[in-house]
Amino acid sequence: MIELYTWSTPNGRKASIMLEELGLPYRVIAVDITKEQQHDAEFRKISPNGKIPALLDHEAKDASGQPRRLFESGNILIYLAEKTGILLPESGEERSETLGWLFFQMAHLGPMVGQWHWFKNAAPEKSDMAIKRYREESLRLLEVMNARLEEEPYLGGAHYSIADIACYAWAKTAVEELSEEETEAEAVAGLNPLLNWLKRVGARPAVVRGMQIPDDQQKEQAATRSSLRESAE
Amino acid sequence: MIELYTWSTPNGRKASIMLEELGLPYRVIAVDITKEQQHDAEFRKISPNGKIPALLDHEAKDASGQPRRLFESGNILIYLAEKTGILLPESGEERSETLGWLFFQMAHLGPMVGQWHWFKNAAPEKSDMAIKRYREESLRLLEVMNARLEEEPYLGGAHYSIADIACYAWAKTAVEELSEEETEAEAVAGLNPLLNWLKRVGARPAVVRGMQIPDDQQKEQAATRSSLRESAE
Repeated sequence: MIELYTWSTPNGRKASIMLEELGLPYRVIAVDITKEQQHDAEFRKISPNGKIPALLDHEAKDASGQPRRLFESGNILIYLAEKTGILLPESGEERSETLGWLFFQMAHLGPMVGQWHWFKNAAPEKSDMAIKRYREESLRLLEVMNARLEEEPYLGGAHYSIADIACYAWAKTAVEELSEEETEAEAVAGLNPLLNWLKRVGARPAVVRGMQIPDDQQKEQAATRSSLRESAE
Repeated sequence: MIELYTWSTPNGRKASIMLEELGLPYRVIAVDITKEQQHDAEFRKISPNGKIPALLDHEAKDASGQPRRLFESGNILIYLAEKTGILLPESGEERSETLGWLFFQMAHLGPMVGQWHWFKNAAPEKSDMAIKRYREESLRLLEVMNARLEEEPYLGGAHYSIADIACYAWAKTAVEELSEEETEAEAVAGLNPLLNWLKRVGARPAVVRGMQIPDDQQKEQAATRSSLRESAE
């Protein structure tokens, strides 16, 4: 059995989409990051940097006989692909391209769109310079993806892969938010290969299901955990 | 033969350290990012996001018979490890941990320390809020590494791996820069497992050599390329 620790964010959805694609049985444990549950000491044993998603694989034991921990969404995608032999070619050009675009998401698309969100929605003071920096970088990264998708149907090449799963929810949120900006809306509307890819990937039944994880009931369990802890304190 | 496109940055050094560790023959092509050579159309064919390092492996041909391109430093590390069977375990807990810490570097340590650099050194206006955000996050990430290195000699576990190579130059620069800050210097000085790991990794002959790539002669060639282009324009 696999236990997935996650929340309703683009990073969390990478793991739930992947598990849905593979059809592996898994149990969802919602980690409510709005209540800072990702910083709980118990969770940090699974995810040392205190980030969701993380995963415990009870079928794979570590040296001390404990279930294998997996942290970092990119690591989870590679692990599940290698466990099942699906969605990451074992060798050759398409493996290199798939991993290249996976790292593009992990090192650029995710962090830069994430910084934009923080400066827009969470910063204690408004910084127009920072907002502009990350808004423009988000568009530039979508343009890089678009140029790739002009040449190939998927980021890794001919086949859908973990690179598409990694980029999907981040690209979707960036497209939606940039479309609301006077300065970038027109440019985004012209990214046809990217927009078509978003439609194609988003229509996959596993993607539809994965995007709904955690569901309301699972979120409710996280809320209960928080209130139990508070009443015990 | 491998051609490495790189510059004297923490990301570039991951690739040159790895090639030195493996003892593979390679030719260095310096890409002078201070002259924006990473945006050249020819280079973008190898590195679609316009970032160094990138690599061409003339021993591995892609579908069109061209040398295999590798972009994203994390991808390059995995590719070279798999090409040689060295520095990334093929399976098991140490593989998962190694890749987990590799992604920790790619998605957190690199981007966050990088943002700190930008707001400190390159931003058109000063934002104390942004500088504080990234300075504090850089320290937090070093503390996460330190907690891991309290338990294990290397990030992946018992053995030196591509996770250590990925984190080395970024952790080194973050430690040096935070040590100059009144607010963080004391905390950094107490991170003994991390500081010992930096010394141990930094003393490896391949790391010493890799940290000197590109050398002055290779940088000179990049400068010549730029002035040839300018005189042709």
